[in-house]
Amino acid sequence: MLDSLFSPKSVAVVGASEIPFKWGTYISSNILDGKFTGRYYPVNPNIKGVFGFTTFPSVVDIPEAVDLVFITTPAKTVMQILLDCVQKKIKNIVMITSGFSETGPEGIQMEKEIIAFAQKHGLNIVGPNTMGIVNTHCSLYATGAITRPKPGGISIIAQSGNLGYQIMEWAESEDIGISKFVGSGNEAVLKIEDYLKYFKSDSETKVILMYVEGVDDGRVFVDIAKETSLHKPIIALKAGRTEIGSKAAASHTGAMAGSFSIFKGVMHQTGIVFAESPRQLLTLSAAFDSFPLPKGNRIGIITLGGGWGVVTADECAERGLRIPELPQSIKDELDRRLPPFWSRGNPVDLVGQPDFQLFKDAVELMVAHEAFDAVIVLGIVGSKVFAYKAAEAVLNLGKMEKNVFDDFVKLLYIHQNEFLDRLIELMDVYNKPILPVSLSKMPGDETVHSCGGKHKVVIYDSPEEAVLCLSKMYQYNNYVEKRSTVYA
Amino acid sequence: MLDSLFSPKSVAVVGASEIPFKWGTYISSNILDGKFTGRYYPVNPNIKGVFGFTTFPSVVDIPEAVDLVFITTPAKTVMQILLDCVQKKIKNIVMITSGFSETGPEGIQMEKEIIAFAQKHGLNIVGPNTMGIVNTHCSLYATGAITRPKPGGISIIAQSGNLGYQIMEWAESEDIGISKFVGSGNEAVLKIEDYLKYFKSDSETKVILMYVEGVDDGRVFVDIAKETSLHKPIIALKAGRTEIGSKAAASHTGAMAGSFSIFKGVMHQTGIVFAESPRQLLTLSAAFDSFPLPKGNRIGIITLGGGWGVVTADECAERGLRIPELPQSIKDELDRRLPPFWSRGNPVDLVGQPDFQLFKDAVELMVAHEAFDAVIVLGIVGSKVFAYKAAEAVLNLGKMEKNVFDDFVKLLYIHQNEFLDRLIELMDVYNKPILPVSLSKMPGDETVHSCGGKHKVVIYDSPEEAVLCLSKMYQYNNYVEKRSTVYA
Repeated sequence: MLDSLFSPKSVAVVGASEIPFKWGTYISSNILDGKFTGRYYPVNPNIKGVFGFTTFPSVVDIPEAVDLVFITTPAKTVMQILLDCVQKKIKNIVMITSGFSETGPEGIQMEKEIIAFAQKHGLNIVGPNTMGIVNTHCSLYATGAITRPKPGGISIIAQSGNLGYQIMEWAESEDIGISKFVGSGNEAVLKIEDYLKYFKSDSETKVILMYVEGVDDGRVFVDIAKETSLHKPIIALKAGRTEIGSKAAASHTGAMAGSFSIFKGVMHQTGIVFAESPRQLLTLSAAFDSFPLPKGNRIGIITLGGGWGVVTADECAERGLRIPELPQSIKDELDRRLPPFWSRGNPVDLVGQPDFQLFKDAVELMVAHEAFDAVIVLGIVGSKVFAYKAAEAVLNLGKMEKNVFDDFVKLLYIHQNEFLDRLIELMDVYNKPILPVSLSKMPGDETVHSCGGKHKVVIYDSPEEAVLCLSKMYQYNNYVEKRSTVYA
Repeated sequence: MLDSLFSPKSVAVVGASEIPFKWGTYISSNILDGKFTGRYYPVNPNIKGVFGFTTFPSVVDIPEAVDLVFITTPAKTVMQILLDCVQKKIKNIVMITSGFSETGPEGIQMEKEIIAFAQKHGLNIVGPNTMGIVNTHCSLYATGAITRPKPGGISIIAQSGNLGYQIMEWAESEDIGISKFVGSGNEAVLKIEDYLKYFKSDSETKVILMYVEGVDDGRVFVDIAKETSLHKPIIALKAGRTEIGSKAAASHTGAMAGSFSIFKGVMHQTGIVFAESPRQLLTLSAAFDSFPLPKGNRIGIITLGGGWGVVTADECAERGLRIPELPQSIKDELDRRLPPFWSRGNPVDLVGQPDFQLFKDAVELMVAHEAFDAVIVLGIVGSKVFAYKAAEAVLNLGKMEKNVFDDFVKLLYIHQNEFLDRLIELMDVYNKPILPVSLSKMPGDETVHSCGGKHKVVIYDSPEEAVLCLSKMYQYNNYVEKRSTVYA
């Protein structure tokens, strides 16, 4: 239903401009500089051209069919533009314009008129008061605040444009792929449940990320969420969980946030995965988009330092994951490879041996064994920082040739990349997640490693992030398995 | 008591070497390349020189007094070296060497002999099986894994060298100042409580950061912690909180981690601030080292986007902080400065006005008012990313001159720096913390902003970090106030 809205062949921007700090400039420059694959038509009766494109006085003057119109002009101009759209047989509108229900009685009245008009003419309206939309797969970057994450599997619905923009900005800087984005604004016509429904059926969307302050019709929302989450994970942050937060939400979007305990009770049945913060929204979505789901909660831990194993074991226990005993067969195998005083338990402490073949073999021993549903690998990725700094000191003291140092550094990157490639191979073979935690970073280090196949590897900054993701993936897998059984 | 250990004028490294991947090389190269302000003597009977320094066959052959000896040679050689140290009247030893109680019965026996010897001769021994020590204030970087954070007020005691090293590495990369570091290793002689006692009296230490797996004598520890925390905040992570974590800790350090619930019950009286993860250890320590303590829990929030205000209000409520109503006087003042539809509540939504004078004035209105004990400022720092990307698109489309763009970007950095300077001024005047949350970063952006004075500003990546720090600072302030009253 919303295909031509999110994947238009041609767009018009009403109020298009080149003048700095205007929304008509932000949207136009973002679309053009973002290299939208379709056609762009600026609409503005007061100027001749925008960024080298000839303007049209009105959408009705555009010589071809238009799939989507962005409106950036003041609230009072909107109704006439909608009339023009109907005349031009345009169905899809992104109403950037603010000054409606969020501003008081007059705005509420204007918004009501828009709703009635849209219903009468079957218009799909995003907003008003929206940050805009994005579809990376046709390079449509059409938000007022500019950020351009690369194409990927995560689609975002945000009841705060600002917050949604920020999540895309993080995704861009961490090289996490995004499919589509919509800032739902005042939700005068299209509501959060409409976007959910669309993303459910959208083949480019693998994971749905939502920032929710409130929903108008809880029952409809729950039904759609329930249907969707059986096929695709929904990762949501519910804002307005507390009385004071709910009050702030009411003053922000005007939506009744309602009691979070009621909301959460209902949501529990939907299979929605709840994040605890905006950062977690992206962290969890990237995990669901990258790793195979764990089929159980039995975790194997491999570490280069004892302390990190302890910290991770604590985190696992606190998040409902189990750390089974190390099977005898693995003990026997590692006995042959490790110094006699190694820990002989899970977590497996590889006691700092700088041996990447051992690292790969140890990971395979764990992931291949039926005792484990997932493996966390601590400190191997990132260990090159230690080696780099050790070599650099010797270089600085004049006891290593520069070319030897350079070759050594190259080798460090190669080892790390080969190790990450191997993790992906092992995930493909055993269909279990392997989560590396890199405690240190160097320039050029990735956040997500991909070989272009089904699975990717997200590289975590700290064990608690990896454990959180595993625990939420485990819970979601449980939910889907139970629901699938019931409905089988 | 440990002054000459942490601030030696001369050090010797037994087992000093230039050969890669040896601890004698790591420690020597780190000390030399780190530009230790004292004198360095390599000890090794098998080679003539190390990094241009003539070696000595034994510490007794060194021609001057030696304040501190690092031992990096195998466990079996250690006792003879200790005898040499006693002969040379050396009191302080950092025993890097492993292979003692962590490896089994034979090692336990050797460690017992060392303990007895140290007691007899009054030796201060760090370790064995330690990562080493650091004192940034005399540029003594003497850890096996190399990282060199800048001088600052945070001193670290780590019962995992690896984990402690990592915290320093994070501090270095985030430009957070460190005073001293010790990896306590097997704690054969010097124990966690000895370091705590020393850092309590050390004038260069403002905040104590601890990673704790277990303590030998709980009563002694509690007494010292109690005494210390009245004067300096102690930020601690207790690992082995869960049964499985405790088991992992036992296999790691051999220490009995004990039940965390008992530990925590006792620790509650000590005023120790508990972190929930290694990252939080550093985050909290940096906050305590930078901001004035909040005298109450009433928080003013300023935001550029409604969603962030809601999220932050929720976080505050969940962490025991309050969001009071906005006082009438502030409403009146902001009525004159903001569009008519502004929220007129706390959080104050500045509705995206790009006006740094307004930002500064709004912060002062809040921090100066008796209704608030602290202020969180969302999105103003970092808002330049939005402006930068908007201008960049216009530049790319050929509608802005490169020199105009460059000047604009310079101005963005200047505005941000002036704003951060102003926050520090306001903190100095009103003695209340102001925590900025920068959601986006650009190259060269700081994590900590300082004007060289009493207070600094830590710039947070996300609101939940700022709220966590405020809530822990508030709790600590409460503890100190209550204890001070009782003892007054």
